[in-house]
Amino acid sequence: MGEKSKPLKVALVGAGTVGSEVARLLLTQREEFARRAGREIELAGVAVRNVSKERPGIPSELLTDDTMGLVSRKDIDIVVELMGGVDETKGLIMKAIETGKSVVTGNKALLSAFGEEIFSASNKAGVDVYFEAAVAGAIPIIRPLRDSLVGDKITKVAGIVNGTTNYILDKMTTEGMEYETALKQAQELGYAEQDPTADVGGADAAAKAAILASLAFRTPVNISDVYCEGITKITQTEISAAHAANCVVKLLAMAELIDGEVHVRVHPVMLPKSHPLASIAGAYNAIMVEAEAADKLMFMGPGAGGAPTASAVVGDLVTVARNRVAGISLPVLAGFKKLPIAKMGSTRCHYQLTLDLTDEAGVLASVATTLAKHNVSVYSLEQVAVDESGDHASVGLMTHEALEDDVLACMKELRDSDYVSNNISFIRVGS
Amino acid sequence: MGEKSKPLKVALVGAGTVGSEVARLLLTQREEFARRAGREIELAGVAVRNVSKERPGIPSELLTDDTMGLVSRKDIDIVVELMGGVDETKGLIMKAIETGKSVVTGNKALLSAFGEEIFSASNKAGVDVYFEAAVAGAIPIIRPLRDSLVGDKITKVAGIVNGTTNYILDKMTTEGMEYETALKQAQELGYAEQDPTADVGGADAAAKAAILASLAFRTPVNISDVYCEGITKITQTEISAAHAANCVVKLLAMAELIDGEVHVRVHPVMLPKSHPLASIAGAYNAIMVEAEAADKLMFMGPGAGGAPTASAVVGDLVTVARNRVAGISLPVLAGFKKLPIAKMGSTRCHYQLTLDLTDEAGVLASVATTLAKHNVSVYSLEQVAVDESGDHASVGLMTHEALEDDVLACMKELRDSDYVSNNISFIRVGS
Ligand SMILES: NC(=O)c1ccc[n+]([C@@H]2O[C@H](COP(=O)([O-])OP(=O)(O)OC[C@H]3O[C@@H](n4cnc5c(N)ncnc54)[C@H](OP(=O)(O)O)[C@@H]3O)[C@@H](O)[C@H]2O)c1
Ligand SMILES: NC(=O)c1ccc[n+]([C@@H]2O[C@H](COP(=O)([O-])OP(=O)(O)OC[C@H]3O[C@@H](n4cnc5c(N)ncnc54)[C@H](OP(=O)(O)O)[C@@H]3O)[C@@H](O)[C@H]2O)c1
Repeated sequence: MGEKSKPLKVALVGAGTVGSEVARLLLTQREEFARRAGREIELAGVAVRNVSKERPGIPSELLTDDTMGLVSRKDIDIVVELMGGVDETKGLIMKAIETGKSVVTGNKALLSAFGEEIFSASNKAGVDVYFEAAVAGAIPIIRPLRDSLVGDKITKVAGIVNGTTNYILDKMTTEGMEYETALKQAQELGYAEQDPTADVGGADAAAKAAILASLAFRTPVNISDVYCEGITKITQTEISAAHAANCVVKLLAMAELIDGEVHVRVHPVMLPKSHPLASIAGAYNAIMVEAEAADKLMFMGPGAGGAPTASAVVGDLVTVARNRVAGISLPVLAGFKKLPIAKMGSTRCHYQLTLDLTDEAGVLASVATTLAKHNVSVYSLEQVAVDESGDHASVGLMTHEALEDDVLACMKELRDSDYVSNNISFIRVGS
Repeated sequence: MGEKSKPLKVALVGAGTVGSEVARLLLTQREEFARRAGREIELAGVAVRNVSKERPGIPSELLTDDTMGLVSRKDIDIVVELMGGVDETKGLIMKAIETGKSVVTGNKALLSAFGEEIFSASNKAGVDVYFEAAVAGAIPIIRPLRDSLVGDKITKVAGIVNGTTNYILDKMTTEGMEYETALKQAQELGYAEQDPTADVGGADAAAKAAILASLAFRTPVNISDVYCEGITKITQTEISAAHAANCVVKLLAMAELIDGEVHVRVHPVMLPKSHPLASIAGAYNAIMVEAEAADKLMFMGPGAGGAPTASAVVGDLVTVARNRVAGISLPVLAGFKKLPIAKMGSTRCHYQLTLDLTDEAGVLASVATTLAKHNVSVYSLEQVAVDESGDHASVGLMTHEALEDDVLACMKELRDSDYVSNNISFIRVGS
């Protein structure tokens, strides 16, 4: 066998939910991969925390807990990182890149924090970094943004990118569950982790929003640039208000380019039921892309899970292997420039407020005056409920498009007034 | 300027609906393209039939009707073919490839007839052929199949890939129009051509089915391999039968890999209203992909139109330009092997029959006997209508999964019997 036909050696770092599926595919479908990549792909080592754990299908001599040792091995061509985590993992990835390996990863937390640094290093080293699995599991969204739409001008990306929160909101909507009950059920069914903070607090979606924004607008976007609000404050009040307005509540990751500024945010949104994202149920993910020429595109599929995510990983792996065989690498940062990040306060949208008012003459007029003072105008208003004593009424109020800062100022003034109880709920309205 | 920074020269062949938009983008966004491709992209010539026609935005000195001359020019790096047609166009494309140009095209008719020959030639010449625009306009579906899913095993692709027929079926369904009326309206609105044969007869969808099947299963598939039935025989009988079964009628392009054989076909299908493809309205396109690991993915967007299709074309163009700058090309046929094409007669699915029976004792039993003789079993049966005289009844009959050949044999026998009028309608049921 000549030099050309030496197999490409792959180091797999992490053999958990996703990694174990990747290992299985690599070990059982060698011929298929060889045919597709143009060269044999050999799983040369698997790093895990616990080497003595039983791992069906993975020969024990491949296992090691010396992760840095594996990544540094001279004979390794490609590192597939599926262990997760940020700080330790960054060191590993940088080491891999510096020693000339190409990298495939599904680590959104890492890329949304240190993407720019990692991509620059890979560019310098002339190696690939591919990360289809980092956003929306099996759904091909990174490549369309990186490649297919590279000639178009993307103006907006909006998606359901966290299956856990979509499942919880779905249960709250269709079965009237309260948040805590729905979360508990999601945990029991394995859709939510025992510590669900990263999902329900929005950080997971925010990491994905940063990656999407960065590729869509070809500019560095860090997770710290993303305005982030989770679903922990959503109650049946918002769900009912949405229902009354023929809407549903969804947690969206959104990135928009407005007047040359990048707006990037994650928060619950009231969406009309006719909106394509409104019907995405359960743990599914879906992403809409709006571009000047292409108009509106939508991508839908399983957002997580071992096998689906492994599909995205091995797709990247075969591409990276092909690139290796061809002796090339495709820089992520190609055509990037630095764009300013907009402040959340400068975002404009419709808002749905639910106010608890004392039922006295003139109260509505006072509310209207406060709104008007802050340039917030009323689109519709509806009495939702009157309390038993009859001296309080709950009012649902939808604003015209307004500035976030103005709405927040209104809310503060209304909360401080004596005719509105502290019980103000507020949700942004999507379109 | 060094050799490296010489602009890449593009020849555009065709400046009609799509080509004129591509020209506009190339001429107005040179800087953006240069940044993204890593090299300036220069529109060096535009071939058209009629050089004296006014073409706003395109400098007249770029125009030529010497298409072969333009394609053969030594200084051209990339040929973008948007003139359509098969025989003449094939000569042009082969000339471009042989003289070392990379090619971007949206020509499904050409690729579904001569794809294998063209791809082999490009492979040999070491140039790229990209064709995202050939299937479903702006929707990135070719790249996901070529690249993102390359590590997975695709088992099925099914899609609405012809906007004209989807529009017509939509009108027949939602407004109860007859086929001829809906077609006429589509023509008036510009959704259908004056000669609508390629759309309504299914050939356009069949070309796309061949391309999808080929990439999904990595095997050569020609348009002549595709079983093709259009929508010209669909009447309110099928639409109503579908409605009664909580279904809609859609024209689907389908490709399945079953026991190592490729099944590829285009025909009207009765789809449950809950099916994700059932709700794709108007001239939109959508494609579902099922893969072993990735599970079910769906891609949706505008399937045609000048600007959306141009988005796909320039996405390809920038990629091809990047590849040129990197000195590489990515072969379409990588990892292909020759798989057998299944005969339509060996397809299995549910069938919905509408039979016009004489209303006599024993007739249903005779029908059941005929079906049973051909291994077709009845899933459900329903009397749809009785004619005025009361001696004929229209019966809707859904079969269990059955073999196409068996069902056709039944139909023949029933038509030849004297208790069934010739008026048998039949439609396949999707899932
Ligand atoms: N799960 C999904 O559906 C999904 C979807 C998209 C993206 N991702 C991303 O994919 C990555 C992996 O996710 P996962 O769900 O597969 O995680 P997981 O099930 O927790 O698996 C983590 C694996 O990494 C190993 N590991 C952890 N720390 C290590 C260390 N310091 N040194 C060596 N090995 C270490 C673990 O070893 P032990 O087996 O010995 O514990 C385990 O095999 C994450 O970045 C995640 O965000 C996951
Ligand atoms: N339209 C869509 O939405 C769409 C979507 C996807 C794919 N496509 C594909 O894209 C291709 C172009 O479609 P289109 O709708 O843009 O077509 P079109 O509007 O008919 O334009 C065809 C162009 O090619 C020129 N042309 C025709 N024959 C020629 C010849 N022999 N030599 C030189 N130039 C010639 C015409 O010149 P004149 O201007 O002088 O007549 C015209 O500029 C087709 O393959 C089509 O299948 C179209």
